Amino acid sequence: MLEKKMKFGGILGFDNGVMLAPMGADISGPELVAAVANAGGIGLLASPVNDYEMTVKAIQETKKLTDKPFGAGVLLEFDNAKSIRAIIDEKLACLEVYWGDFPKEMVDEAHKHGIKVIHQVGSVKAAERAIAAGVDCIVAQGVEAGGHVVGSVALMALLPRIVDVVGDRGIPVVAAGSISEARGYVAALALGAKGICVGTRFIATKEAYANKYYKQQLLHYTEQETDLTDLYGRLTWRANVRCLNTPFHQQWRNAPDDVQNDENQPIIGYSIIYSKEVVLRRFAGQVANRTTCGELENMVMLAGQGVGLVNDIIPAGEVVKRYVEGAKTIIKELGETYLINSRKKEDEKEEDDEKEEGWTWIRKLCL
Amino acid sequence: MLEKKMKFGGILGFDNGVMLAPMGADISGPELVAAVANAGGIGLLASPVNDYEMTVKAIQETKKLTDKPFGAGVLLEFDNAKSIRAIIDEKLACLEVYWGDFPKEMVDEAHKHGIKVIHQVGSVKAAERAIAAGVDCIVAQGVEAGGHVVGSVALMALLPRIVDVVGDRGIPVVAAGSISEARGYVAALALGAKGICVGTRFIATKEAYANKYYKQQLLHYTEQETDLTDLYGRLTWRANVRCLNTPFHQQWRNAPDDVQNDENQPIIGYSIIYSKEVVLRRFAGQVANRTTCGELENMVMLAGQGVGLVNDIIPAGEVVKRYVEGAKTIIKELGETYLINSRKKEDEKEEDDEKEEGWTWIRKLCL
Repeated sequence: MLEKKMKFGGILGFDNGVMLAPMGADISGPELVAAVANAGGIGLLASPVNDYEMTVKAIQETKKLTDKPFGAGVLLEFDNAKSIRAIIDEKLACLEVYWGDFPKEMVDEAHKHGIKVIHQVGSVKAAERAIAAGVDCIVAQGVEAGGHVVGSVALMALLPRIVDVVGDRGIPVVAAGSISEARGYVAALALGAKGICVGTRFIATKEAYANKYYKQQLLHYTEQETDLTDLYGRLTWRANVRCLNTPFHQQWRNAPDDVQNDENQPIIGYSIIYSKEVVLRRFAGQVANRTTCGELENMVMLAGQGVGLVNDIIPAGEVVKRYVEGAKTIIKELGETYLINSRKKEDEKEEDDEKEEGWTWIRKLCL
Repeated sequence: MLEKKMKFGGILGFDNGVMLAPMGADISGPELVAAVANAGGIGLLASPVNDYEMTVKAIQETKKLTDKPFGAGVLLEFDNAKSIRAIIDEKLACLEVYWGDFPKEMVDEAHKHGIKVIHQVGSVKAAERAIAAGVDCIVAQGVEAGGHVVGSVALMALLPRIVDVVGDRGIPVVAAGSISEARGYVAALALGAKGICVGTRFIATKEAYANKYYKQQLLHYTEQETDLTDLYGRLTWRANVRCLNTPFHQQWRNAPDDVQNDENQPIIGYSIIYSKEVVLRRFAGQVANRTTCGELENMVMLAGQGVGLVNDIIPAGEVVKRYVEGAKTIIKELGETYLINSRKKEDEKEEDDEKEEGWTWIRKLCL
């Protein structure tokens, strides 16, 4: 009966297969997570780094805005034991981990508290390790994704391979990377995914805790205008991110390897991130949130290649609805275009006008 | 009636939407082109560079092996007036052009002779220019593709954007890049393509004029093990290709910018390419064909990220069949998984056992 009660593409007990990427520092904050949860999607809070109180606070603020289940994401690059403890104590529905290995004991610990574990990976090998650790869901991230990018393979090539590795273990695979609308959702389903994980499209929503300037820029850049770079945030975490190829970025993208966002760099702004004041120096890794002031145009703006398909700022619930309703329409159209006609072709010899009308009738009813 | 007579996904008058990439030098030769044509796909000969007689010879050899229509591809990087003349004189069904602009006068000239023009592009801007020139079909090539790669955007982000730019002009868009099996075919259809253009998967066929060693290597490399590089063939054409990240390639991939395949480089083998003897020096751009001898492991092996899904060497007709039959099955499954259940959900209040059996019946009949 559970299956039946789920709406289009439900996974992990959620109504549908639309997952909000836990975008840091606090872009995927309480408002956005609650909006996605209320729309039946899987909202993932970007958890504060290794901070018990702040994580609890963010979770409780989200709970005020929704009574639906939601989760949180943590980065395995850093010690996040305190944030994970908070997530367990608050009994969230799920915990997403990324950028590193999450050992079986930790997965077991989460399970003991009824928390499902989602592991985002960028390669088949990392998927194999996640499966061995007993995770409940795998997010396969393609290189076209925005923000931190762990792999080098495009979704078209990576996703079916990870689906094959999962096999019949019943672990849903979710696709991440440039899926800005329903066409990408159905493409992901065709490749074997059970859902999609979405970042960039959700930044351009009313509820995202991103700066207006950042949201607006997403509407003006195309798929051609992103770059994969390790220029930002090097002081704490040297890793590739995909970001908008802004004039500032073009000017600095080939900066020497030893350039980093340390005290030699000028201050370009200030932010409050999860109640904490942060000074932003040039090449800082933090995107601009609602509180940020300073040289907004010189701050990193993380985005995937799917940015070319993002053309409006709308409520997050509307984003989820467009994915789900759009996907249904596309699947119907695929059936109408390719199945009925090919069936006709097979039955061509028996075909007559009456029979054709018969098909039209069934098509209307069924697709 | 034409529409009805086409099989799954027919475009440009061919039975189905499976297009063979014109892989050089002579990998997409008469045998492979004829095999794809005989299976109802669009076989594209890799035309010899600007050589009237050799192009006519290759076309006539292909015509001996098939009475189905087929086409040929030419590179706009080089003057190819003589090859194009041969293609027109031989009245092929279509001409594919790549890597540059093909002016309206040339498109008109092809049309005057009943030849359809296909333009492969890697960006929305190039697609706009092709539309303005009046082409009949656009191939959208993602950065995950093998061989020469003109763009930088993954298919998931590029394809729907090009489909939108085409709009309702009735120009089919074909997807190229890492589509090694039916899942990718349906993903491309979902993103708005009408067909797929396939390279790597067709190299691992009995009919491809590739060296056995090259074919075998495709079975052993994964999506993780390709590289985008301009190391090869620099003497004649400096451009990015995607190739297998072999031990040889790993050793040399960061070679200085001025290293090229000139007379300073040792001879590593010999080939006969379209009846012409060719000396292969280190970093030559030519892949190994059936005649090639020498250090095969030190020659470039072009392949897309879809190589991870290529696991057998089979007849090319079987490849086409797997795409077409597999795509039908996947579209059926998408309908069964997402449409019937969601319909059930909507009608949940009226739902009873009899009604459910009714759906099962319709499902069997229709999907």
